[in-house]
Amino acid sequence: MELKILLLLKEKHPGYVSGEEISRLLGVSRTAVWKHMCRLKEKGYEIEAHSKIGYRLVNSPDKLYENELTGLMKGKIIGKSLICLESVGSTNELAKELAQSGAVEGTVVVAEEQTMGKGRRGRTWYSPAGRGLWFTVILRPPISPVDAAKLTLVTAVAVTKSIREMTGFPAGIKWPNDVLVSGRKAAGILTEMSAEIETVNHLVVGIGINFNLDPGAIPSEIAEIATSVTRAGEETVTRAALLAGILNNLDSLYQDFLSGSFPQILSAWREMSVTLNRQVKVESVGMSEEGIAIDIDEDGALLLQKKDGTIKKVLAGDVSLR
Amino acid sequence: MELKILLLLKEKHPGYVSGEEISRLLGVSRTAVWKHMCRLKEKGYEIEAHSKIGYRLVNSPDKLYENELTGLMKGKIIGKSLICLESVGSTNELAKELAQSGAVEGTVVVAEEQTMGKGRRGRTWYSPAGRGLWFTVILRPPISPVDAAKLTLVTAVAVTKSIREMTGFPAGIKWPNDVLVSGRKAAGILTEMSAEIETVNHLVVGIGINFNLDPGAIPSEIAEIATSVTRAGEETVTRAALLAGILNNLDSLYQDFLSGSFPQILSAWREMSVTLNRQVKVESVGMSEEGIAIDIDEDGALLLQKKDGTIKKVLAGDVSLR
Repeated sequence: MELKILLLLKEKHPGYVSGEEISRLLGVSRTAVWKHMCRLKEKGYEIEAHSKIGYRLVNSPDKLYENELTGLMKGKIIGKSLICLESVGSTNELAKELAQSGAVEGTVVVAEEQTMGKGRRGRTWYSPAGRGLWFTVILRPPISPVDAAKLTLVTAVAVTKSIREMTGFPAGIKWPNDVLVSGRKAAGILTEMSAEIETVNHLVVGIGINFNLDPGAIPSEIAEIATSVTRAGEETVTRAALLAGILNNLDSLYQDFLSGSFPQILSAWREMSVTLNRQVKVESVGMSEEGIAIDIDEDGALLLQKKDGTIKKVLAGDVSLR
Repeated sequence: MELKILLLLKEKHPGYVSGEEISRLLGVSRTAVWKHMCRLKEKGYEIEAHSKIGYRLVNSPDKLYENELTGLMKGKIIGKSLICLESVGSTNELAKELAQSGAVEGTVVVAEEQTMGKGRRGRTWYSPAGRGLWFTVILRPPISPVDAAKLTLVTAVAVTKSIREMTGFPAGIKWPNDVLVSGRKAAGILTEMSAEIETVNHLVVGIGINFNLDPGAIPSEIAEIATSVTRAGEETVTRAALLAGILNNLDSLYQDFLSGSFPQILSAWREMSVTLNRQVKVESVGMSEEGIAIDIDEDGALLLQKKDGTIKKVLAGDVSLR
């Protein structure tokens, strides 16, 4: 009911809607309408009330409420179940527990803040309250573990496409899973899976997007390499809208992936890449290689042309552009 | 203390040990000794007590108590933590939860009975109380997901070697993960992993061994294909001894694996295989191939020579011997 009232207020925005009309349209008492208005105000919605003309939504809080997201979501699979939290240790960790307990495919865990946000290979991900999008999507594709890397690429395309479309920033993908804006990291993707040898049980795809990090508060170890997709005070899009945009794009790309269109997604990836045709250094467990990143193959592996002309296929690692 | 008293009784078996001696050796009161004897009896240990000469162990229960296992375990990694249960849904499921919560490498979950025992790809595994070994080992090897299949092979070697050594039955391995006795399935291995794209977080290796299934009680759908490693009434080894033997062999092979000796383990696998040089049919998701299983390669994949002479590399699937 709260959501329905909010949608009515938004529909009439910036105009008024009378308590009587809400009461009639939604079939609830005037007292109930008033109570819901109080609850919305408690959540940070600015609502003007005039005894003669009714209620008017002045401002919505910058919060990732289910309320704010539901109306913006258009996906068939992704976002069917939304879990919106004020704070969580790690959205990936919670999503793994939920997936293990049988959560439906497309469940999304979103948090305002992560207290123990994770990056790849045990690294931490700085995830302060309200300064980014920290969320994880549960997927159950019928694929084998070797194909899981592809979904990191699919996700990178969805995130980059959405940032480009919605913020205007020229975001680019650094293989395999970073989204850069002006050469700095604005978003990262952490894919984790539960699998048997031949089949994936489920995947959790964690996405962290720096939205309007406070430059003064960024930890020194990432200050030189991190950036945000918008600057504080210059936001051209709300966090809720960007999140919904990404989930909608991901939903559509994921369906394409399931129906066999990975090659087309790979083409989009190549177009968005800032890694290809560059001299790069790739580091992984006990391995360090330099060369020109000439392409990625149909498995999502990076093809590195070394000085001696040989081509090395790299499945995963940390890339630095030289 | 209970374990110490039991070890003393076993040491003196089939002789007596006096309450006074136990009391002196272990530094506990005679009353405490008596109480521990009562508890051991409740657990199924048959203990004779004579007021003059003391206590004598007549018989140990056929139970997988930590008591029974600890003295038999020699591993450095595997079995350092033992969780012995009367009944569990699935040892793999519990092990996954424990691993997720940080359980140490080498933790073993053993249950007398699984009420929802799992086979590969969502199949059930018949796991009646006391009629088999149903257990799972938690491993944390520093490997990538593509190498996880190797640990199924390592485990198959450990299980087959132990069954051969301890029961005398000529067990053989059917690729990738079944152990056959006289052409029927006596044991299976279900490896599951939690992983990032490039690194495994942890593996759980589940092992189910039919020990002395009651032929009359075997579900009809597996009656034709299942067998046990011993026949009821003709046991040449206790379940506890076989379990400890497998864990000890696995511990040693796992250390070999970590130190780079997978090729040698693969040689042992080949020697134990009943799949190689046979006409086989391999079925997997949306795939069915026939051919001669000519070898497995260094990744653990089956190499299938088809009628037209081409060689197909199969990473996973169900093999039937033709």
